[in-house]
Amino acid sequence: MAPSRLPKQSEDFPAWYVEVVKQAEMAEHGMAKGTMIIKPHGFAVWEAIQRALDDRFKATGHQNVYFPLFFPEKVLAKEADHVEGFAPEVAVITHGGGEELEEPLVVRPTSEAIIWGTYGDWIQSYRDLPLLYNQWCNVVRWEMRTRLFLRTTEFLWQEGHTAHATKEEALEEALRMLEVYREVIEDVLAVPAITGRKSESERFPGADETFTLEGLMRDRKALQCGTSHFLGQNFAHAYDVTFLNQEGELDHVWGTSWGFSSRMVGGTIMAHGDDAGLRLPPAVAPVQVVIIPIYRTDEEKSSVLEVAGKMRDELAGNGVRVKLDDRDQHRPGFKFSEWELKGVPLRLELGPRDVAADQVVIVSRVTGEKQHRSTADALNGIPGMLEDIQRALYEDALAFRDANTHEISSYDDFRDGVEAEGGFWAGAWCGDIICEEKVKGETKATIRTLPLKPEDPGAPCVICGRPGVERAIWARAY
Amino acid sequence: MAPSRLPKQSEDFPAWYVEVVKQAEMAEHGMAKGTMIIKPHGFAVWEAIQRALDDRFKATGHQNVYFPLFFPEKVLAKEADHVEGFAPEVAVITHGGGEELEEPLVVRPTSEAIIWGTYGDWIQSYRDLPLLYNQWCNVVRWEMRTRLFLRTTEFLWQEGHTAHATKEEALEEALRMLEVYREVIEDVLAVPAITGRKSESERFPGADETFTLEGLMRDRKALQCGTSHFLGQNFAHAYDVTFLNQEGELDHVWGTSWGFSSRMVGGTIMAHGDDAGLRLPPAVAPVQVVIIPIYRTDEEKSSVLEVAGKMRDELAGNGVRVKLDDRDQHRPGFKFSEWELKGVPLRLELGPRDVAADQVVIVSRVTGEKQHRSTADALNGIPGMLEDIQRALYEDALAFRDANTHEISSYDDFRDGVEAEGGFWAGAWCGDIICEEKVKGETKATIRTLPLKPEDPGAPCVICGRPGVERAIWARAY
Repeated sequence: MAPSRLPKQSEDFPAWYVEVVKQAEMAEHGMAKGTMIIKPHGFAVWEAIQRALDDRFKATGHQNVYFPLFFPEKVLAKEADHVEGFAPEVAVITHGGGEELEEPLVVRPTSEAIIWGTYGDWIQSYRDLPLLYNQWCNVVRWEMRTRLFLRTTEFLWQEGHTAHATKEEALEEALRMLEVYREVIEDVLAVPAITGRKSESERFPGADETFTLEGLMRDRKALQCGTSHFLGQNFAHAYDVTFLNQEGELDHVWGTSWGFSSRMVGGTIMAHGDDAGLRLPPAVAPVQVVIIPIYRTDEEKSSVLEVAGKMRDELAGNGVRVKLDDRDQHRPGFKFSEWELKGVPLRLELGPRDVAADQVVIVSRVTGEKQHRSTADALNGIPGMLEDIQRALYEDALAFRDANTHEISSYDDFRDGVEAEGGFWAGAWCGDIICEEKVKGETKATIRTLPLKPEDPGAPCVICGRPGVERAIWARAY
Repeated sequence: MAPSRLPKQSEDFPAWYVEVVKQAEMAEHGMAKGTMIIKPHGFAVWEAIQRALDDRFKATGHQNVYFPLFFPEKVLAKEADHVEGFAPEVAVITHGGGEELEEPLVVRPTSEAIIWGTYGDWIQSYRDLPLLYNQWCNVVRWEMRTRLFLRTTEFLWQEGHTAHATKEEALEEALRMLEVYREVIEDVLAVPAITGRKSESERFPGADETFTLEGLMRDRKALQCGTSHFLGQNFAHAYDVTFLNQEGELDHVWGTSWGFSSRMVGGTIMAHGDDAGLRLPPAVAPVQVVIIPIYRTDEEKSSVLEVAGKMRDELAGNGVRVKLDDRDQHRPGFKFSEWELKGVPLRLELGPRDVAADQVVIVSRVTGEKQHRSTADALNGIPGMLEDIQRALYEDALAFRDANTHEISSYDDFRDGVEAEGGFWAGAWCGDIICEEKVKGETKATIRTLPLKPEDPGAPCVICGRPGVERAIWARAY
């Protein structure tokens, strides 16, 4: 499609997001309300994320499984907090094969219920533990207000569900997977992430502890990038999952679950994009290098395309994801804008004079820098330049986050500042949900993280002045 | 789990299948009727199939996308044959978020409807064509009689959906993907496949032509292993998908669709398994080599495990999927049976005398052959031995199919033979559905394939004696 002008991020970030997702051909709305069609350029980013995660899951001893999309309504109801959290969002199948079902089926909003409803059959003794399973699937949560990638009725994710003999092992697993997520978010998606715990009110329904990774988007709002839950023995109690421990005693199993979803495609867009469009980290960019041939005459065309084709083949042979844009119907300037919009990290421009001089022009999507390089030098240098871009995006985002992280000096400053400027705001909290609710009510900011291990903030609660028991980080969030 | 005795294939093949799927821990039933839980050993086979297919899809220019799980009921209804074929099997969502929906949504039984309902927005001119898209997803078809992997209410598959400017291109695409499927079925899953066309009555609802691949299982029943459909302009007409061709005229788009599902995990089990359990082709075996240490004393244990660990690391370093079964609670004989049951192609046995002699015992799951080899020789030889096993499984299955393929001499022989012996039965057919229905009614056999290009069989119809117009291959099928 012809790129049209994007709204400026600084003027209307939500409009910028809607337009960049559409014009960069990442995704669009499906026919049923709240559903999403992920287009090739968006899906390829998700596939790269999947590969990065799945390789790490396997390296940490996990295996993939698949549990059904739907299960009887009553199965969801066994864990009290869990059903309270998810029942309001659930989709229900009442008819199948032309007949009304005897018992309605729920479409999974998450799979703890069916998985813990099954683990009881799989676990008898400590020898059966741990179970380290993961599944890649779609889940459905009925949403009233939807936004592509960030909040849709159906979304794609992976959900890990593990079972352990001891509390220590389960806690260790939950934190191990948090670290896997951190690696992928920071090293692959180039988004700096704050790791921490959720407050009780923000915890996953049914968890004893929810660990989270929070990123800052370019509109200074926070995005929860992934969560890992320590489930304690809650689901084991609810679904009666016990085992004979090494001492021959019957005990309840300890659990974790952890999820990472296609919303992080949206997170990647919002953490790095600029007024010209996407800026994709090379590690997940479907096209890392685009070659734009420039010519006027047929003779020029044939010599330029010949050299361009050789460059493409050599780069592809070195494992670079490269595209030669040889479309005849568009002029080079149009192509420059289109690939900028689509976030391709490096653009090579090749015209007749470049061919004659055995050189090429290289333009970085991140710095905008334009270099003339000999062809050999360019081809050799590209993997290193892609690494530099990966690093530069991370550094950019980190500097942005640092510039937008504030130490709370007074409640009034915090209340006005978080509303006016966004960003992260850190300070002491008394641990009382009343203060948490007050902030939320007055500013829409929520506690994004508490430290992984509680530590005395050594200061009074920034809201009520009573002794602080936690250091909290607040932000307005997606 | 402790392997118990399997029913003999020759005595009760369906019972053998049920037990081998259960005991080899491939899959089990979910809580809702007709659903399936795919366990790690089964899912790893599916993942290997996915990788083999997806690599080939990308090498032939396809990109992955994702369309929603559900869409409005009315969208399904636009293509008359299509809705007639799928409406009876459809699951319907009537409630979401605690409220009755204004319009019921259908859960996709396949995605032609929503995809062709969207392609109209994506295609304006011949420059937008072809669209070569695929998606990996779950689909739901309400089934009364289910069997793990082979027929379940929800199953996993990929579905390719392509759009083309000309009939020739679309036909070529449908046949190209048939060839991709043939490669994966024959070269990866080691199942010989007959390629051909379906008769009109067996065609995909909405297709002009369905191409198929048919394998023969060890109970002499046929299994449809994958299908590729030439859709003509049917869906383009139904969903009004037109384009401006190179001459500037408005024309309807030509389409294909093609699908390959998790049922082929079942097909792989049934094409190769024997009375001792699975025999998995090395290309998809989750564990290609298992090392069983044999020891009595603690001293023996430590020296055997040390050498076994080194062998495992060296094999893993060479890209072999290897497992060292160092479980203490089971004796070697138990482990031999368990890994035989699970279909692991090669077993290495290593005892104290082997360690002393720097040798190892290698046992092939396919031939049962037992060899003593020096350790170095064994480690070097294993990749080649796995290739031999891959080939041997294919040759085995091919010989079995050849021995069970019959030329029809008379209708009576055919009728009695197909019922008593199973297998493929080939002969001339007049092309009349009345003869097709007669065979089906009297023998339950259906036409599995017609030649890719119709050819005069030069003989009268084996059923009615009128002139034959096609050479058909019949079988009783899953």
